[in-house]
Amino acid sequence: MKCEIIAVGSELLTPWRQDTNSLYLTERLNQIGVRISFKTIVGDRQHDLVSTIATGLRRSDILILMGGLGPTEDDLSREALAEALGVSLRRDGGLVAALSMRFAAMRRPMTDNNLKQCDVLPGSIVLANANGTAPGQWIDTGFEGHRKIILMLPGPPKELKPLFDSDCMPRLRGILPVRNIATRTLKATGIGESAADALLAPIYVTFTDVETTILAGHCEIQLQLTCAKRSMEAAQRRVNELASRLEEALDQYVFSSDGDSLEQIVVYYLELKQETLAVAESCTGGLLAQRITSISGSSRSFLGGAIVYSNDLKTAFTGVPPSLIQTHGAVSAQVAESMARGIRENTGATLGVAITGIAGPLGGTDEKPVGLVYVALSDAKRTFSEECHFRGDRENIRLWASQKALDLVRRRLM
Amino acid sequence: MKCEIIAVGSELLTPWRQDTNSLYLTERLNQIGVRISFKTIVGDRQHDLVSTIATGLRRSDILILMGGLGPTEDDLSREALAEALGVSLRRDGGLVAALSMRFAAMRRPMTDNNLKQCDVLPGSIVLANANGTAPGQWIDTGFEGHRKIILMLPGPPKELKPLFDSDCMPRLRGILPVRNIATRTLKATGIGESAADALLAPIYVTFTDVETTILAGHCEIQLQLTCAKRSMEAAQRRVNELASRLEEALDQYVFSSDGDSLEQIVVYYLELKQETLAVAESCTGGLLAQRITSISGSSRSFLGGAIVYSNDLKTAFTGVPPSLIQTHGAVSAQVAESMARGIRENTGATLGVAITGIAGPLGGTDEKPVGLVYVALSDAKRTFSEECHFRGDRENIRLWASQKALDLVRRRLM
Repeated sequence: MKCEIIAVGSELLTPWRQDTNSLYLTERLNQIGVRISFKTIVGDRQHDLVSTIATGLRRSDILILMGGLGPTEDDLSREALAEALGVSLRRDGGLVAALSMRFAAMRRPMTDNNLKQCDVLPGSIVLANANGTAPGQWIDTGFEGHRKIILMLPGPPKELKPLFDSDCMPRLRGILPVRNIATRTLKATGIGESAADALLAPIYVTFTDVETTILAGHCEIQLQLTCAKRSMEAAQRRVNELASRLEEALDQYVFSSDGDSLEQIVVYYLELKQETLAVAESCTGGLLAQRITSISGSSRSFLGGAIVYSNDLKTAFTGVPPSLIQTHGAVSAQVAESMARGIRENTGATLGVAITGIAGPLGGTDEKPVGLVYVALSDAKRTFSEECHFRGDRENIRLWASQKALDLVRRRLM
Repeated sequence: MKCEIIAVGSELLTPWRQDTNSLYLTERLNQIGVRISFKTIVGDRQHDLVSTIATGLRRSDILILMGGLGPTEDDLSREALAEALGVSLRRDGGLVAALSMRFAAMRRPMTDNNLKQCDVLPGSIVLANANGTAPGQWIDTGFEGHRKIILMLPGPPKELKPLFDSDCMPRLRGILPVRNIATRTLKATGIGESAADALLAPIYVTFTDVETTILAGHCEIQLQLTCAKRSMEAAQRRVNELASRLEEALDQYVFSSDGDSLEQIVVYYLELKQETLAVAESCTGGLLAQRITSISGSSRSFLGGAIVYSNDLKTAFTGVPPSLIQTHGAVSAQVAESMARGIRENTGATLGVAITGIAGPLGGTDEKPVGLVYVALSDAKRTFSEECHFRGDRENIRLWASQKALDLVRRRLM
């Protein structure tokens, strides 16, 4: 069963825009056992579209067309699909009436070009679009002696996603063999991809019925576990068995066994353990606080903090003695610890965390190179710091520094 | 002249990975007048690859294959291209010797599977890969009576980009008609896409030799201007003429006429005008500071600030009287202005900017709904605030709030 996704739109062939709908569709389709064999991106040109669709019909069983359903001259998906199938479009009276009412309700005149949105393929099922004017279409037809399922979906993500979930997933389930697919996502930080694979491969290779994928990126590794069985219970059981074994092996490196982000985990445990947190950031300049406050509800445990880019502010907001900065430098374990202690005391939080370092690309020296970062944690009992050496560009170093700080907090809480 | 990009790799057909190389290649190709007609993503399966390449050869003049050049069994691009062209691969003795030396230099044994990286197509030009083991190939050949240019490039961006720039761009320039393409990017904020288009269309439609594209996203609109001429001077002159006219019409909404980000512009003007900035953030929780400090060199004008998530910290770090919060609420013009004034005074900055609002999804009331944000600016002469109503989710509201604050600072400086 081959499935192909075709994204339609000349803007998707520029340097500035990219198809992202297909990632969503792929995730949903994988859940019902459908893998993607091809993705094609094609512009708003009739000839190119027809040839792309014809190629898709020859090599795939399920064809998903996204975009090109609007009212403008550039919207050619309906016409191109009809030409590729060798059939004629039919204007649907019911759709015309509904569209006219929609415009009347908005008190806007309906120009004639809108009518093409009411053209349907023979035998198609119209999929009502609750979030836009152009309906989708489901076509179950034959092509050169083979059964083909063709979906035409609107391009805007806010229209496509709900339409696919409500109208396409149940229909696809209905025609596909019953497969129940259980998935689990483990996340770990502080360990590299190859070290993790060396540690985990001896375990996951023995689970021949569970597919394990290791992905690295954004300062963490993800383990994607997938298992397909006749019964969902059996699939879930195998995924959970493997997940437990991998978690045990990864030990403290694992921070999430169900896909949560590190900031979600930190916010969750802060509240659970009834702790409060404040931060003092130098080189990350607000990135750590921004990540924490991106989580709704973080205000219950996160008090705030200070961005102490200048040395004066390190003293004013976190009480670092100017002499400490003079003696050890602003990027030092001593200053990081003083910042963590100071921000905790000045805010009344139970935990203080601080970051000071050199994010680059300028400002490094032989003694204190770009990428040198001190991360400190302070609670009522003790204050300590870790010296880190991060690689990459400014963005990467800042991201790793914030990750390390979040992970220090997580380990303290768990 | 049709150009097609084919990205090879089964991981690019999962929900977790996406081809981004093609955006880079598209930008570079556009600069020499080549547009992309198709992008295809295909997995590491011989049959699918051969059919994808054959389709590409039939419909495109330039074919760029990315990925599938490594040493593993899954790396099949060379074999598939040979099959699609109906030719045989030849093992290149010079490449074998070079690869052996490379492994010897690394003091690592070279396993036999590495040798497939030394297989070349008949008549191909080998493109040395300075950043990896698999070389690229340039093939100028015939297919069904038409000339085809085929590029095989390694998949990792760090290998592909320099190889394309150094070895492919000059060769493509050599075989393409001379076209000099000038581009310009204007950026504006505070005006919507359709309002901008209504304002600007009467101007840009009269420049029939310049292509104008309006893109909306991330709280700003971008205007991409492109003009192709025989002489670069003439192309640049026309682009600049149109850019000036559009800038004039957009007036204060334009913040950049050469692609710079809003944070770059703010940091640039802070230094130029010898002003210093400090921030006080409530609902954005560090996002504003993080955006400013993402710019290298921002430390010369940006002192830091406070993240005052809790009311106590609004008082402790920015001197907001508790009675002011009690009377007007933490989300109010009065508190925003007090925060801006307080952070300026407490840090000694010449400019203070503050944000307080309700980012949601929880915490809204009828009187103060989700999306209500006050942004305030304070200098030695005056302090004022603006009331904003942003739509969308938490992330979007926070992003818009930080954008508004940056724009207030920009307008104050210009």
